[in-house]
Amino acid sequence: MPTLAPDAVLTASGFVRDHVVVVDNGLVTSVTKFPPGPIDVPLPGRVLIPGLVNAHSHAFQRALRGQLPDGSATDFWHWRDRMYALVGGLDPNAIEAISALAFTEMAESGITHVGEFHYVHHQPDGSPYADPDELAHRVIAAARRAGIRITLLRVAYERNGDQPLHPVQRRFIDTGGAPVLAATERLRRVYGTDEDVIIGLAPHSVRAVPPSSLRTLASFDGVIHTHVSEQPAENAFCHAQSQCSPTQLLADCGLVHDRFTAVHLTWPEPGDVDCLVAARARVCVCPSTELDLADGFLPVDARRRLPLCLGSDSHATIDLFAEARTLEGHGRAQSGQRGILGQPQAGGDGRLAWRALVAASAEGARALGLPRELGVTPGDPADLVAIDLTDLSALGVPPLEAIIGQASPRWVDSVWVGGTRIVAEGRHVRREAVVEAALQAFATSYRTAAG
Amino acid sequence: MPTLAPDAVLTASGFVRDHVVVVDNGLVTSVTKFPPGPIDVPLPGRVLIPGLVNAHSHAFQRALRGQLPDGSATDFWHWRDRMYALVGGLDPNAIEAISALAFTEMAESGITHVGEFHYVHHQPDGSPYADPDELAHRVIAAARRAGIRITLLRVAYERNGDQPLHPVQRRFIDTGGAPVLAATERLRRVYGTDEDVIIGLAPHSVRAVPPSSLRTLASFDGVIHTHVSEQPAENAFCHAQSQCSPTQLLADCGLVHDRFTAVHLTWPEPGDVDCLVAARARVCVCPSTELDLADGFLPVDARRRLPLCLGSDSHATIDLFAEARTLEGHGRAQSGQRGILGQPQAGGDGRLAWRALVAASAEGARALGLPRELGVTPGDPADLVAIDLTDLSALGVPPLEAIIGQASPRWVDSVWVGGTRIVAEGRHVRREAVVEAALQAFATSYRTAAG
Repeated sequence: MPTLAPDAVLTASGFVRDHVVVVDNGLVTSVTKFPPGPIDVPLPGRVLIPGLVNAHSHAFQRALRGQLPDGSATDFWHWRDRMYALVGGLDPNAIEAISALAFTEMAESGITHVGEFHYVHHQPDGSPYADPDELAHRVIAAARRAGIRITLLRVAYERNGDQPLHPVQRRFIDTGGAPVLAATERLRRVYGTDEDVIIGLAPHSVRAVPPSSLRTLASFDGVIHTHVSEQPAENAFCHAQSQCSPTQLLADCGLVHDRFTAVHLTWPEPGDVDCLVAARARVCVCPSTELDLADGFLPVDARRRLPLCLGSDSHATIDLFAEARTLEGHGRAQSGQRGILGQPQAGGDGRLAWRALVAASAEGARALGLPRELGVTPGDPADLVAIDLTDLSALGVPPLEAIIGQASPRWVDSVWVGGTRIVAEGRHVRREAVVEAALQAFATSYRTAAG
Repeated sequence: MPTLAPDAVLTASGFVRDHVVVVDNGLVTSVTKFPPGPIDVPLPGRVLIPGLVNAHSHAFQRALRGQLPDGSATDFWHWRDRMYALVGGLDPNAIEAISALAFTEMAESGITHVGEFHYVHHQPDGSPYADPDELAHRVIAAARRAGIRITLLRVAYERNGDQPLHPVQRRFIDTGGAPVLAATERLRRVYGTDEDVIIGLAPHSVRAVPPSSLRTLASFDGVIHTHVSEQPAENAFCHAQSQCSPTQLLADCGLVHDRFTAVHLTWPEPGDVDCLVAARARVCVCPSTELDLADGFLPVDARRRLPLCLGSDSHATIDLFAEARTLEGHGRAQSGQRGILGQPQAGGDGRLAWRALVAASAEGARALGLPRELGVTPGDPADLVAIDLTDLSALGVPPLEAIIGQASPRWVDSVWVGGTRIVAEGRHVRREAVVEAALQAFATSYRTAAG
């Protein structure tokens, strides 16, 4: 029954000092006023917050980081070609090793739960692996190696919009919604009710999945994520096909509800935000990727009115503090006004930094099917992050504002998932083994593929 | 004659490995292939780059960080009122102590030269201090305490646009250009040709300085900085007064040349970028402040065509790595295209990350009157930064892309200015004393003022 003693603890009503957090059997059992009893884990200079949640990830894309240094991919679509060149060369071992690197980096940056939008399913020629869920198992194994929770969002992908199939896309394809639902059922049977692994569904986009299959997939009873209006070309395609916006098409097919997360929504059309608000759906914003891929900025109206969660997506960088601070900042620069983030959520203290931290944690947890409120709370899983606030840049700054305004992954001192400490003094307990496997994967599949 | 041995050194043509850097008498004397001789400073896992240059700072505003947590300042002008409330309560000791904190934080984040846009000159009632340059001396003393170079940009400020004077503005006001030029002459006499201290001039903005004074100030022969088109209201004011844009007015008054830096330029009008390009002037972009204050985004055309340098301005955060990475990213999100930053500069390797690093160092140095190229070069002052690239997020990433894509101030291991080591293992050598004085300043002038 370890007792943690940080300088301050983030509770549902804000930071409290002189409290300890007691953890037992994977849960927070109490948050109590500093006792005279023994302290197992003193955390001087650190504050304790709930684990961050990364609601949108394509883990294998970590291998692309820094590999297009000449800026030669001129837009989103050209970048996608380069990413496909990577996908073509990855075998199951490489996918597992690179995913483990991404997830371990996430752990070291304070992330305790990832939503993996998993779309590489088959062999390079499109035929299934001996176990048709081989790559899903590999990605889940990678998350277990990193010690973080995973919601595996099993992707449905059928076509390349109205263009001929790219050869690499054969690795993504299932025909019709039924085989995808069958895959989610198989995965649920394997992983059962384990809270470390949740199975969700991800119709990739309206480009990749026709309306008939979207309707089939709507019967899924878990969390559903879809890329929505990431690029203007996607909206144009949807109008040509269905005479409506992507959001509207998804709603018409029965997918837009309170278990639905629209990823990106960079280019919503009139009525789309209303539609999502009415359904109590949310948006997953991925600011660093949306800058890197020249997508654009989530419009101000969506920032004000919709629940927001965050993803590091392509992993150009993995830093949910930085992502969170842009939610308000990009809205300000678009509008010329301050105070853009929506209304205070219940239980919080109403400050902008609180709302940004909700996006980086509690709202992400809801999006991934493991809802909780922001705050270290007795009864919740002990997914905890100790942040070192001794940086000079935090001097004189309230902890909440220091975290959202100043923190970077290097401020993460320790991380626990379900009470198990996976990061200590900024280093993952299995860092060396993960690095060794990743370097091997880079040296083989990747370097040849990227040429 | 210390010899530094990092993993790699950034030279004018890119990173080289297995080299040592020899420093003598404040200068880099050689960058040579790894010798068998003794190493004074081994820097394993670190790479060595030239010091970063922060071209736009209002150091005392560091005290505002995290102090408007409710977002209650609804726009730029309301924020300015809150900043004025702070200014009203600061005495010379507080200004020096808070400036020293800001400059020390800069040093710990890899900055070796700051451009201080210094506009608080007088006592709260507007009367001069016994030494009329008292506060300039205090700010320069703060930079010396932090051990970094400073270009003191002595501000000219006469009026509040066409509005009545705000009482706090009495601390800023000189009437006419001549007293300001006289102040620069006095300061130059005191600081001589010392390369630690350069005296520049900063007509605050076309709002604050009338055309007649701008013409007088144009005779200054050093570097000149001006806030230009930060907010649409400034353009509207200038049209009402002078029937042209702020940039055009400054050019008409003789201020736009290759020693001129336009700070912000968030809202250029047609022809303004052409005007600055023709004059070989540059723009100082301050992305984090421009988000925080709801200014907007520097337009893509300016990003492509003008030399860019960077400033942390209001010090909402001090992280030139983060500022540099947004130069390309915000351009991409505005345009839907990648590869936004302008043409490769001579001597570099053409990569986007190189151009971003030029903005964070060499172009800033030009803006502050101490020109040099990017790269650790024999004969240059030994202003050097050792960056720790052992972070998991840098694995498999080329050093240049890791620095621009991933680095944060916490990656800064060591900093030398003119050969003197001011930061070791991430800590400034005088951190404790600076912190003590800053806390005292916060406790007195500031807390009462911000109330």
